[in-house]
Amino acid sequence: MASGRVCGLIRRKHLQNQVIAYRPIGIIESRHTLKEKTPIQPVYARGCRGKAVVFEEFSAGLQDLEGFSHIFLIYHFDRAGSPRLKVRPYLEDVEHGIFATRAPSRPNAIGISIVELVRVEGNVLWLDGVDILDQTPLLDIKPYIARFDRIENTRNGWQDAIDEEVARARGRRGFEG
Amino acid sequence: MASGRVCGLIRRKHLQNQVIAYRPIGIIESRHTLKEKTPIQPVYARGCRGKAVVFEEFSAGLQDLEGFSHIFLIYHFDRAGSPRLKVRPYLEDVEHGIFATRAPSRPNAIGISIVELVRVEGNVLWLDGVDILDQTPLLDIKPYIARFDRIENTRNGWQDAIDEEVARARGRRGFEG
Repeated sequence: MASGRVCGLIRRKHLQNQVIAYRPIGIIESRHTLKEKTPIQPVYARGCRGKAVVFEEFSAGLQDLEGFSHIFLIYHFDRAGSPRLKVRPYLEDVEHGIFATRAPSRPNAIGISIVELVRVEGNVLWLDGVDILDQTPLLDIKPYIARFDRIENTRNGWQDAIDEEVARARGRRGFEG
Repeated sequence: MASGRVCGLIRRKHLQNQVIAYRPIGIIESRHTLKEKTPIQPVYARGCRGKAVVFEEFSAGLQDLEGFSHIFLIYHFDRAGSPRLKVRPYLEDVEHGIFATRAPSRPNAIGISIVELVRVEGNVLWLDGVDILDQTPLLDIKPYIARFDRIENTRNGWQDAIDEEVARARGRRGFEG
């Protein structure tokens, strides 16, 4: 038992120091160049076109993607600033743990956006609902699949207390579509 | 114009060679030790309990997470094997581009699961719907927020052709909850 616990501790220590390295598979191009004027989520960025340019070496991986109306973009928040464990999210003036928010200043600055896939042209994905800064490094693309990703009957923590109209008005951050 | 294009090419070359380094924020513990017996998605893993153990240094980031019924776990597929650009996904015997599937053998082996958050005890998240191998390194946690993430009226590409009952039977991969 004791040696099992020691092994567990050693494994955990090893894992804590592990570095996981990724390389961009492409780049996101958008009209957003200022963080403070970028909509906070795709749902508040309707009419905001942009594209994901996938590096040619990965083009073959896009086959059959155009059948999906929505995709997850997974990207690196390269202008997020230092990580913080407590933040005041944009929609509320109350502090929350970073993992209870979608704020960029995370221990690992990974961003996720569910955007609309308008069309695919070779290695370029034309998108709508882009809430991502121009020139952001793209790490992965996954299809949004309703049977996996559309969850009914959720509780949404502090977000449930925020009025939908307020969220819409604030979340768009002045972007004119 | 020409110099602008050259700058663009240099920037792209730079980005392609960039290494983005993350460190695990915790570890996922589950009953799944064999890839081929692990359900392919949380929706096929109901009754499969597990936990995410967040390293103590990040505990403060969990504040207010327990208000959410569902969370995104973002993790590293550490046993994914070599990346491939074309795969036959588990639910269909037809080849698709890797980015049109959720298969693990991706250029950047990043996994996303939307799991049910049963309760939070200090730095431990008790989960249901775990479709993740035991001892998987955890990279990030985000709340599932219905107003951002529940997309109505989607087209789901090759997934739309798969019968729901077949998907359920195959997706569970024999896991007895």
